[in-house]
Amino acid sequence: MKILLANPNATQAITEACRELAHRAASPGTEVIAWTNREGPPIVNSFYADYAAGRALSLALPRVAPPPDAVVLAGFGNYGTAAVKEVMEVPVVNIAEAALAFALPFCHRFAVVTAPARMVPYTQDLIALLGVAGRCAAVHAVNLPPLDEAEPSPGSALTAIVTAVERVIAENGADLVVLGGARLSPYAARLRDRVGVPIVEPVACGVQLAEAAVRLRLRQSKAVKFAAPPGLREGGDTWR
Amino acid sequence: MKILLANPNATQAITEACRELAHRAASPGTEVIAWTNREGPPIVNSFYADYAAGRALSLALPRVAPPPDAVVLAGFGNYGTAAVKEVMEVPVVNIAEAALAFALPFCHRFAVVTAPARMVPYTQDLIALLGVAGRCAAVHAVNLPPLDEAEPSPGSALTAIVTAVERVIAENGADLVVLGGARLSPYAARLRDRVGVPIVEPVACGVQLAEAAVRLRLRQSKAVKFAAPPGLREGGDTWR
Amino acid sequence: MKILLANPNATQAITEACRELAHRAASPGTEVIAWTNREGPPIVNSFYADYAAGRALSLALPRVAPPPDAVVLAGFGNYGTAAVKEVMEVPVVNIAEAALAFALPFCHRFAVVTAPARMVPYTQDLIALLGVAGRCAAVHAVNLPPLDEAEPSPGSALTAIVTAVERVIAENGADLVVLGGARLSPYAARLRDRVGVPIVEPVACGVQLAEAAVRLRLRQSKAVKFAAPPGLREGGDTWR
Amino acid sequence: MKILLANPNATQAITEACRELAHRAASPGTEVIAWTNREGPPIVNSFYADYAAGRALSLALPRVAPPPDAVVLAGFGNYGTAAVKEVMEVPVVNIAEAALAFALPFCHRFAVVTAPARMVPYTQDLIALLGVAGRCAAVHAVNLPPLDEAEPSPGSALTAIVTAVERVIAENGADLVVLGGARLSPYAARLRDRVGVPIVEPVACGVQLAEAAVRLRLRQSKAVKFAAPPGLREGGDTWR
Amino acid sequence: MKILLANPNATQAITEACRELAHRAASPGTEVIAWTNREGPPIVNSFYADYAAGRALSLALPRVAPPPDAVVLAGFGNYGTAAVKEVMEVPVVNIAEAALAFALPFCHRFAVVTAPARMVPYTQDLIALLGVAGRCAAVHAVNLPPLDEAEPSPGSALTAIVTAVERVIAENGADLVVLGGARLSPYAARLRDRVGVPIVEPVACGVQLAEAAVRLRLRQSKAVKFAAPPGLREGGDTWR
Amino acid sequence: MKILLANPNATQAITEACRELAHRAASPGTEVIAWTNREGPPIVNSFYADYAAGRALSLALPRVAPPPDAVVLAGFGNYGTAAVKEVMEVPVVNIAEAALAFALPFCHRFAVVTAPARMVPYTQDLIALLGVAGRCAAVHAVNLPPLDEAEPSPGSALTAIVTAVERVIAENGADLVVLGGARLSPYAARLRDRVGVPIVEPVACGVQLAEAAVRLRLRQSKAVKFAAPPGLREGGDTWR
Repeated sequence: MKILLANPNATQAITEACRELAHRAASPGTEVIAWTNREGPPIVNSFYADYAAGRALSLALPRVAPPPDAVVLAGFGNYGTAAVKEVMEVPVVNIAEAALAFALPFCHRFAVVTAPARMVPYTQDLIALLGVAGRCAAVHAVNLPPLDEAEPSPGSALTAIVTAVERVIAENGADLVVLGGARLSPYAARLRDRVGVPIVEPVACGVQLAEAAVRLRLRQSKAVKFAAPPGLREGGDTWR
Repeated sequence: MKILLANPNATQAITEACRELAHRAASPGTEVIAWTNREGPPIVNSFYADYAAGRALSLALPRVAPPPDAVVLAGFGNYGTAAVKEVMEVPVVNIAEAALAFALPFCHRFAVVTAPARMVPYTQDLIALLGVAGRCAAVHAVNLPPLDEAEPSPGSALTAIVTAVERVIAENGADLVVLGGARLSPYAARLRDRVGVPIVEPVACGVQLAEAAVRLRLRQSKAVKFAAPPGLREGGDTWR
Repeated sequence: MKILLANPNATQAITEACRELAHRAASPGTEVIAWTNREGPPIVNSFYADYAAGRALSLALPRVAPPPDAVVLAGFGNYGTAAVKEVMEVPVVNIAEAALAFALPFCHRFAVVTAPARMVPYTQDLIALLGVAGRCAAVHAVNLPPLDEAEPSPGSALTAIVTAVERVIAENGADLVVLGGARLSPYAARLRDRVGVPIVEPVACGVQLAEAAVRLRLRQSKAVKFAAPPGLREGGDTWR
Repeated sequence: MKILLANPNATQAITEACRELAHRAASPGTEVIAWTNREGPPIVNSFYADYAAGRALSLALPRVAPPPDAVVLAGFGNYGTAAVKEVMEVPVVNIAEAALAFALPFCHRFAVVTAPARMVPYTQDLIALLGVAGRCAAVHAVNLPPLDEAEPSPGSALTAIVTAVERVIAENGADLVVLGGARLSPYAARLRDRVGVPIVEPVACGVQLAEAAVRLRLRQSKAVKFAAPPGLREGGDTWR
Repeated sequence: MKILLANPNATQAITEACRELAHRAASPGTEVIAWTNREGPPIVNSFYADYAAGRALSLALPRVAPPPDAVVLAGFGNYGTAAVKEVMEVPVVNIAEAALAFALPFCHRFAVVTAPARMVPYTQDLIALLGVAGRCAAVHAVNLPPLDEAEPSPGSALTAIVTAVERVIAENGADLVVLGGARLSPYAARLRDRVGVPIVEPVACGVQLAEAAVRLRLRQSKAVKFAAPPGLREGGDTWR
Repeated sequence: MKILLANPNATQAITEACRELAHRAASPGTEVIAWTNREGPPIVNSFYADYAAGRALSLALPRVAPPPDAVVLAGFGNYGTAAVKEVMEVPVVNIAEAALAFALPFCHRFAVVTAPARMVPYTQDLIALLGVAGRCAAVHAVNLPPLDEAEPSPGSALTAIVTAVERVIAENGADLVVLGGARLSPYAARLRDRVGVPIVEPVACGVQLAEAAVRLRLRQSKAVKFAAPPGLREGGDTWR
């Protein structure tokens, strides 16, 4: 099957990092087609960028040809996920949804570690929207430098993330941690060696959930909420 | 004071209808400047249109010159309200937020009547995001013809709305009704003559709340969630 | 318009302080009539005092002549607000309701700072009753000396309040703070110079919300909950 | 032990009916002292009457001499229960609290049947305040004539109540019903013959819970919320 | 009346300790018959042990002859309480349910102290199942040595428990503490001398609630959830 | 990989039906080993049977040799899932958890159809325990004859299920339906031809989630809640 791995932002390096994570998670026979939202923002780090990303995504994804068997939205956020579910006829899975869906059966209470601090309210709203806030022990930010600054030594970033993870375990009672952002996903493997709880890496969850949806012939309900937008034409807005 | 009344969609006739409602609600000394989101969709009747509206709004509003004293977002929905709060330094009020804020002190449980049916889940998500779902008795859709069809006789539309309002009162225990959409607002006055509960018309609430915010020097907290997006330049995206 | 600003307690000095705050918040053309609940307790600092205040208020306010256009209940509490809404035909706004209604559109999560410590559970019950507990980051008490003791130096009280505000921001994730009591309101302006989040002063919100209600012809729903008490006579209880 | 059974309203006939119910529920060795709130309203059928009742109760009960071992507040409502808990040093039990506490272990979801219709919002607020709304299937009103009208034939009232009970079972999934008011309690025994779910009569629960509290030396926590009101003097308000 | 006090685990010493607590709490005329779940686990300290206990309980209790007037399940947990309610025709009361039911009227927010740490999630699930999580300030574990190790000096265990109780009061705002486990119950009296909030000992609550249920002729609703299991035969499973 | 498909009840015919569903859902390379809980009840249709099933499961599954790569618990219920997660070192997935996890990303609000009526409260408790009740529109029972009676004509059963599904869509606003029980799963394909919303069949979801967990090296957190029971020996209870 063909899965379109859609990076909601325009940064090619993030697409590549996600492609790598997705590739490792994909089953034999699954072709992962990494796609960059070129009209989107360089990173989704605000509601402003969220809308920029979602507008571009919901315009561009229906035009991808040939259509994939499923779409994985490879950003830990909202950025128009419901809009994409409306405009697409194939299953659409957001990696945040996938990560939280996969976390629920395997924990008492999960925590999400994210960056930067301004994404904490954004992430809390997302978790509430998904209806799983009752299982969320905490959303905690870790300080990482902006993307366009020199990367700190990997060791110091890892130390910062480990500290955040240990804090949500000890102080908030989390027994599973979800990595809430593309900045954090690459640290998943090293984190697993350092902490005693499952670390959920969302890109891999997204790929697995998309594969499962295709196999189960399951997609977003087109009955009401995710029905095609009124009057949408092939190729874009009806009103243009 | 100058209040920018921003219609999130591109339909001039709706802007005019909102302007009329706003004008009647404004205090002496308040200048209401009606503004149409020309780059937005003709109506926000899907998540797809929501993102189209929000993207255009968050690009265009910061460029309005001279800047108003406050912005009223004149659509009953989300359409990037948080993004607009990020990009603006003046108070930004969404009429749905305003209507629900004004409803709380005056009812036991409110209902929202909306149209069309597909907006029910959209509206439920909005109410949950605002944190007031515990006070919401029901979101109920009323069938109205699409905007681009011939308008039914006003009497038949009014009858349909009255029926919906009576139902949420009798079956769901609502004792106040919020009109959730531009299609419904013009019926407010006639509804008040027909039903025994307060009818909240959101455009008027938005104007009043914006005036109050200006007088109280209150605006969205710029501390975290609504801080200016990282690197936003005057006039639009930093990344373009 | 004439707004009756009803201090639920019997302390004239508090009435005066509220009158001052209300006066500054009122629009041109609004006449604020400050009123003291002479049969009430000196301060509402317990449920016992809450009932003393509410009983006296709900007896006295209907007898105020000529009737005002709206009533603002100028205490951050409950003290029979629903009873007053029942007995009055004009809009009745409690300043706590008003402050929370105005806080919602402008924050992610609000905190309430109150005094003394015993008012924390009282205030938590109030916030839950209003249905907005999901948006409340914390209710935090600040230690202030009793009213009848010598006032501490204003500087030391301000320092205590600043400390409390900074704590709810840093530890509880609040990005807006509501001043929950007449003891705290006078510090609003100085607080705004010291902390980086909006400070909501409830008396001003109450005045603005009452003005808005009058302009919008909105009042408490008289359909069920706030319908006139069975058999209430003009001038007081039917049963006396 | 001596239990003061305090009728929050001034109607002697209701006191007598409660006394009868309490007497049957009391253990050997328990003396039930029925007490009427002579300064209260004839019935608590509004928030206005609630405050009238609570104010009078919280003034009068501390003066009852000799003090009882426990107080049972014999009305299904709030009417200043927290205020009474503050002013009393002995355990204070409201029959609504008692009924709901006793309902929880014995059902999946309880319903409350009350009268008249205006008490539905009042009762919903009460259940939410007690923190057990998640277990409440419905609050349903039954039409009974006002107290001061001629009583309908007992059979017709019973039929109305049975209909209400059957409705909350069939439509709302309740598997236990609490009788929410003095008007309904006398029908408990006959209801049990007619419907297939437990019927909880609150006065009896109140007596049993008060007895249990005395035996267990349990009373309301005087640590914060129910601590004695600041400066309360023996015999009443400090400020008079 | 005869109350069967059923220890869900197989440890006779715990049965004896519970018998002692129950004996002190029982009213004159109540015969407490202590019973040990000999086929159960030595202690319920895991979900695994919970199911071992519940399976054995639900097989054995219906065979107890002559049947008691009520059953008190003397462990602070779940361990098949609903199953026992199904198989028994007499009232069945779990001491956790009883303790929480008795805590509600006497506090603002309760905390549960339990041991060991792994029982915190177990206890949180239990409190949520009972529908009273909104009143729960915290579940906090105290470190006590395993049952089969040498008991620490009573003084050091008491100190550990006092520390835990003081923490939930100061940090979590609890104003009443429930002792969540057989290891903790014996410290109830000494705790009451040391801390300023009510300490609820569950075994005593269970006895009192069972007595009350018998007197009130109240038992679990047999309408749906707790109806006899389909086809259950006297003496055990139908399928064996 | 080898997945143990554990039927929690002892009915071989149900095991076979589940095996068939699982086989169709499994990926190439996945070996599904169907296993019957021979010491369990014939069906889990009560809390009593739930504990019988869970006790037997948690004793037997650790002894399965060689150990599988993952366990799928093939019943729509609880029956000791947490206990099995404690005793197993490999990922354990309950099909109810899996079905609800897969439902969340694809709907606004899901409904569960179950049978018989007594399983409605059982299922509501399960959904609440999983923390997703906020997304649940309804749990609705469909009348199907007991397993041991003659099966109705498949057409009449299908009609009954279709009626139930249409009801939760029209009256409760569900836009996706989960089949909550082994009796209902075989109708999934025919239902999909009849109704306009996604039908989630849990056995297939369980297989897919288990496969994903193995691929992602994800299992239940062994940190606290699902840590191995204290002192559990290989082969069963430590205390025997």
